[in-house]
Amino acid sequence: MGVVIPFEGGEGGCRASLEPLVGLVQADMDRVNEAILARAHSHVELIPELAGHLINSGGKRIRPMLTLAAARMCGYPGEHHLKLATAVEFMHTATLLHDDVVDESDLRRGKEAARVIWGNQASVLVGDYLLGQAFRMMVETGSLEALRILSNAACVIAEGEVLQLSVSQDTSTTEDAYLKVIGAKTAALFAAAAEVGAVVAARPRGEQAALESYGRNLGIAFQLIDDALDYSGSTEKLGKGVGDDFRERKITLPVVLSYRRGTKEERSFWKRTLEQGNQTADDLTYAKKLIERHGAIADTIARADHYGDIARDALAIFPETPWKAALLEAVDFCISRAY
Amino acid sequence: MGVVIPFEGGEGGCRASLEPLVGLVQADMDRVNEAILARAHSHVELIPELAGHLINSGGKRIRPMLTLAAARMCGYPGEHHLKLATAVEFMHTATLLHDDVVDESDLRRGKEAARVIWGNQASVLVGDYLLGQAFRMMVETGSLEALRILSNAACVIAEGEVLQLSVSQDTSTTEDAYLKVIGAKTAALFAAAAEVGAVVAARPRGEQAALESYGRNLGIAFQLIDDALDYSGSTEKLGKGVGDDFRERKITLPVVLSYRRGTKEERSFWKRTLEQGNQTADDLTYAKKLIERHGAIADTIARADHYGDIARDALAIFPETPWKAALLEAVDFCISRAY
Repeated sequence: MGVVIPFEGGEGGCRASLEPLVGLVQADMDRVNEAILARAHSHVELIPELAGHLINSGGKRIRPMLTLAAARMCGYPGEHHLKLATAVEFMHTATLLHDDVVDESDLRRGKEAARVIWGNQASVLVGDYLLGQAFRMMVETGSLEALRILSNAACVIAEGEVLQLSVSQDTSTTEDAYLKVIGAKTAALFAAAAEVGAVVAARPRGEQAALESYGRNLGIAFQLIDDALDYSGSTEKLGKGVGDDFRERKITLPVVLSYRRGTKEERSFWKRTLEQGNQTADDLTYAKKLIERHGAIADTIARADHYGDIARDALAIFPETPWKAALLEAVDFCISRAY
Repeated sequence: MGVVIPFEGGEGGCRASLEPLVGLVQADMDRVNEAILARAHSHVELIPELAGHLINSGGKRIRPMLTLAAARMCGYPGEHHLKLATAVEFMHTATLLHDDVVDESDLRRGKEAARVIWGNQASVLVGDYLLGQAFRMMVETGSLEALRILSNAACVIAEGEVLQLSVSQDTSTTEDAYLKVIGAKTAALFAAAAEVGAVVAARPRGEQAALESYGRNLGIAFQLIDDALDYSGSTEKLGKGVGDDFRERKITLPVVLSYRRGTKEERSFWKRTLEQGNQTADDLTYAKKLIERHGAIADTIARADHYGDIARDALAIFPETPWKAALLEAVDFCISRAY
């Protein structure tokens, strides 16, 4: 089983870190950040204004970093990976804008959600604009294969979101069903982001598939840790309100496990709070207690670790380079967030 | 000035008709209709259910017909135009789903809007799915130029919708500003739909530009007639509730003209009802009276006729064929809807 190896360095002193990856992609990422600002521009002022709010809210931009690092690890010497990375981040931003409308969230990355300031209408439409810009940039690279992969991802993400509408508020959701949701909703874009790095570098199918697998499994691990943090972390660490999933009545893995392992009375509690949406002030505290009682946080992290292992092994076919090491440490970092 | 020439045939006996176009594209359109159903499919049941509601609600599918007819007029013998036509209709359907959420409409094509039945959330996400499918189909044609044109259109449409958010509820909107909105919001997809017909047939730039111009001007004429019908037509003819624009506080050309030509008191009326949204039961009737008084319907139709003329002239470079005749008559039909 994968063990979260404490790394030297970083402010905390002994955590795996995203720093090696951030450092390696820095020069590329500066140009992606410029492109993000340039491409969010429009003569319609509301568009850069609203998009800028989210763009400047300090997301880690892990998805475009995957594209950049994957392309460079594959020896790509050109510039098209910058456009694909920007497109990937725009697809993600568009999803966030639409998500906030769908979830009726008030916070995003610890800031007021765009929909609260500018309204649902503008959030839907600016999301559409960013998605259009993402496709424009893909077209500019001339890579039909990248377009194929990313348009597939766009469909799969939307399917995952719709699936979550029905799964959410069904406490009898199985772990498998839940994994399908996050496989589509989160992991598909991680997978596509990494895969197009190999595509732009014109690497053989095997390397393309390896990066797809790396991205997919990293994405699942990332989401599971997010789920765990929503019941155990701090708002600061999570970049969103702790307990949001509970308040928004989302069924996540900690709940799936606690529900299955719970008593009849406990299941009634989950049904009342998440299915019927009948929540009182103390319910989140009690929910955390139940999740703790059944070891559901520890086991969610263990599951994440399993997918992290698969992500690490997927990269085994690549020669040892600083790029590969940084991508491997990104897996450790992602999981160590839980501690 | 273009005159709406009464045509023989059709149930009414003397109107220009869409029938020649419909008849010519019938065989292609049957396959597009199959593709629409097939591509709206998903293992996530809610997606075909919701998409099917809108797809089966009897839109005229004028946009995909433009793609089909343009490709055939250009002598295209292949099948890729079917995919592009389907993609165009999906882009349009996605826009309608998002529009209904943005406008908070209750009716769409005379039926309950999807958002009323399945909620805003599902409408946003299924729209995203259809947009993703549209891009998937474009990729399948392998035409980067078609992808460029249609991804541009996707951006421009979203920009137009955002622009409308700010323009709407500003009674001092000029005719030019309003034309910018509908140029983006409606005409851009008409233009792209026609243009990609020439692209798939690998015709020279001049023909591509001619079809782009035809589509753009037809789209503007189409929208202006829609605007006129919203104050003068029947719900049956319009396929949506008459007076919707007024209730949704949209500034359209009949209002722009009536506001400018009105007295101080009349301008106060428009400000109260459309800017402040303070409407009473009799206001729509009074609004129609003002629009009538200032000849704003007749002049909106005259403006539409002007764009119709440009659309007709754009096609002049093409040899006389039944395809061209049908596309020309589609312009007449579009404008004759107003009578």
